[in-house]
Amino acid sequence: MKEIVAGVDIGGTNTVYGLVDRTGNVVAESSLRTTDYPEIGDFVTALVSAVSKLMSSGEYKLLGIGIGAPNANYHKGTIELAPNLAWKGIVPLAGLIKKKIDVPVIVTNDANAAAMGEMIFGGAKNMKDFIVLTLGTGLGSGIVINGQMVYGHTGFAGELGHTTIVQGGRACGCGRKGCFETYASASGLVRTVLMLLSEMREKSILRDLPPSGLTAKKIAEAAMNNDPVALKAMDYTAEKLAFGIYNAIGFSSPEAVFLFGGLAQAGEMLLEPVRKYVEMNVQPIFRGTVKILPSGIPESNAAVMGAAALIWNEIPA
Amino acid sequence: MKEIVAGVDIGGTNTVYGLVDRTGNVVAESSLRTTDYPEIGDFVTALVSAVSKLMSSGEYKLLGIGIGAPNANYHKGTIELAPNLAWKGIVPLAGLIKKKIDVPVIVTNDANAAAMGEMIFGGAKNMKDFIVLTLGTGLGSGIVINGQMVYGHTGFAGELGHTTIVQGGRACGCGRKGCFETYASASGLVRTVLMLLSEMREKSILRDLPPSGLTAKKIAEAAMNNDPVALKAMDYTAEKLAFGIYNAIGFSSPEAVFLFGGLAQAGEMLLEPVRKYVEMNVQPIFRGTVKILPSGIPESNAAVMGAAALIWNEIPA
Repeated sequence: MKEIVAGVDIGGTNTVYGLVDRTGNVVAESSLRTTDYPEIGDFVTALVSAVSKLMSSGEYKLLGIGIGAPNANYHKGTIELAPNLAWKGIVPLAGLIKKKIDVPVIVTNDANAAAMGEMIFGGAKNMKDFIVLTLGTGLGSGIVINGQMVYGHTGFAGELGHTTIVQGGRACGCGRKGCFETYASASGLVRTVLMLLSEMREKSILRDLPPSGLTAKKIAEAAMNNDPVALKAMDYTAEKLAFGIYNAIGFSSPEAVFLFGGLAQAGEMLLEPVRKYVEMNVQPIFRGTVKILPSGIPESNAAVMGAAALIWNEIPA
Repeated sequence: MKEIVAGVDIGGTNTVYGLVDRTGNVVAESSLRTTDYPEIGDFVTALVSAVSKLMSSGEYKLLGIGIGAPNANYHKGTIELAPNLAWKGIVPLAGLIKKKIDVPVIVTNDANAAAMGEMIFGGAKNMKDFIVLTLGTGLGSGIVINGQMVYGHTGFAGELGHTTIVQGGRACGCGRKGCFETYASASGLVRTVLMLLSEMREKSILRDLPPSGLTAKKIAEAAMNNDPVALKAMDYTAEKLAFGIYNAIGFSSPEAVFLFGGLAQAGEMLLEPVRKYVEMNVQPIFRGTVKILPSGIPESNAAVMGAAALIWNEIPA
C-alpha cells in the first residue's frame, strides 16, 4: 500500500481536505461546508468519514492527518476562541479525531501550515531559517528557525500580522491599532488607496468605484495601467511590508522571506519595491543576506499541501 | 580533577575572563586590557596564557572556552567588523584559540551569552522560550526558542536593539533612525529626559545638570524623589520598552522576558509600568502569558558566567 497523509484546511465557510503523497502530489481532494456543522462532534464525524471515503480504493495507508485552522494551538491540538467558527470556547480537535481514527493528528494555524508546506514541498527545501507571510484579507505568518516551526510557550507564536508597526495607527479587527496587517494585506492595500484618494489630487480610475467594491486585484490592475494612485498605493504597501520584514530579519535573521496569498499575486510589482525598501532599511549587518521570494507552492493546493506537510515533516524519508 | 569551563567577555576596553563550574560558581576571575593588543595574534596568545595561569593549580580539567564579544558570529567562530575593537575585518577568533589550546571554543555576542547564562544558571532554568534584553548604553538581546539560542541564517540573529520602533525617529549609532535602543536603554532614557525638558514646564533637578553629565542612575534617583520630569521619563521609557517587548511576544510567544543591565537596575520602578504597558497592548491571545522579570544572574559575574554557559549548555549533566 502506498503511504499517504491527509491535509485538512478548516475555514470559516469551507473545509478543504485531500490526500497528499510524500512528493507533494495531491492525489485526491474534496471539501465540505464548515457551516453545516455547528456542533463540533458532527463536524468530526463528517470529516473522518469524508477522509475515509477518499481512501476507499484501499490502495493507501494513512500515516496521519495534518490540519490548518484558525486559532489552532499546536501544543494542545485545540482550536481556541476562533471568532469565525461556530464552535465556541476551546475545542480539543485533535483528541476528538483520534478517538475516531487512530493516527497522528497535528493542528496548527493556516500560516504555520503554509510555512511547513514551503519547507517540505516548496521553495524552502533545504532552508533552516525562513519566514512565510500570507497576504490575504489579513496577514498570517509562519516562522521556521533552525529547521523548526516556532510555536512558542503558548503554541500561538508567529503572529506578525498583529505586531504593531504604527503606534496609534489604523484600527484593527483585533481591537488594537497600527497592526502590520492593517497596512500589509489585501484589505490594507484598499485602505491605503482610500487614504491616498483623500491626499492626492491626481485623476484615478479608483475614484469611480465605490470603496466597498475596491479589491487588491482591481488596484493591481490599475497600477499595471499606470494609475497614479494605484502606483503610489503599491509603493506605500511595499514600504510598510518591508518595514515588518526588516524588523523580523533583526529578530531571526532568515535566509528567505516568502510571500504568499492574494496580495502576493501582484508579483514583481510588489516584490521589487519590497526588496528595495528592505535593503535600504535593514540593519547593515543583514544587508544582502535575505531573499524575498514568491511562494514556491501553487496557490490552489497550498492549504491542503501545507496541512499534510505537518505530518510528512515528522516522518523520516 | 574537577571539570571547569572558561568564560571570556571581550569588551572594547577590557577583557574579563574566569573559570566557572557547572553550578555557576566563578572560582577564579581576572582581566586584561583589550586595547593592549592591537594585533589579534598577540591577544590570543595573552588570553590563552592568562586562562592557563588561572588553571595552574592543576586541580581543574578545562572542558572548553565560551566567549562573548561584539559582532561575534556563532556559526563561524568569528568577530566581524566590530566598530569598537582594534581588530579589523573578519577575525577567526575561535580557530586561532583552538590552535593554541585544543578544547571546544564557542563565540557569540554578549547578549546571547547573557541569555545562555540565564538559561543555565539564572531565572530561565527549565524554560524553553524566553528573551533577555540587556539595557546598557545600547540594547542587546538574546532569544531562546524551543530551548535553543536563535542565531539565524547569518549567525547574527537577535538584534532587537536595532529593530525600528519609530519610523523616522531618533538617530541611532548604526546610521539609521528610530531603533529600539535609542529609546529603551540607559542612553535612551537620557535622550528622553532632554526631550521632556523641552516639552514640559515643570521644575526639575535635571535642569541643573549639563546634558553630558546626565546618567540613567541620576535620573532614576530623581524619579525616586518624585521629580516630575524624571518620573515622566521613566514612564515614557517603560512604554517604549513595552512596545518592543509586545512586538517580540507576537513573534516568539516567550514564557518570560528578562531585563538586565544598567537601566534594569531601576528595578520595579521600571518593571511595573513595563508590565502594565505590555498587558495593555499585547495581542489579546498572549495576555497574561508572559512574565517580565529582572535577570536572575548577579550583574558582577554575568558576562563571565554567560560566556561559560555557552560551553556548559553543550555538556550533558
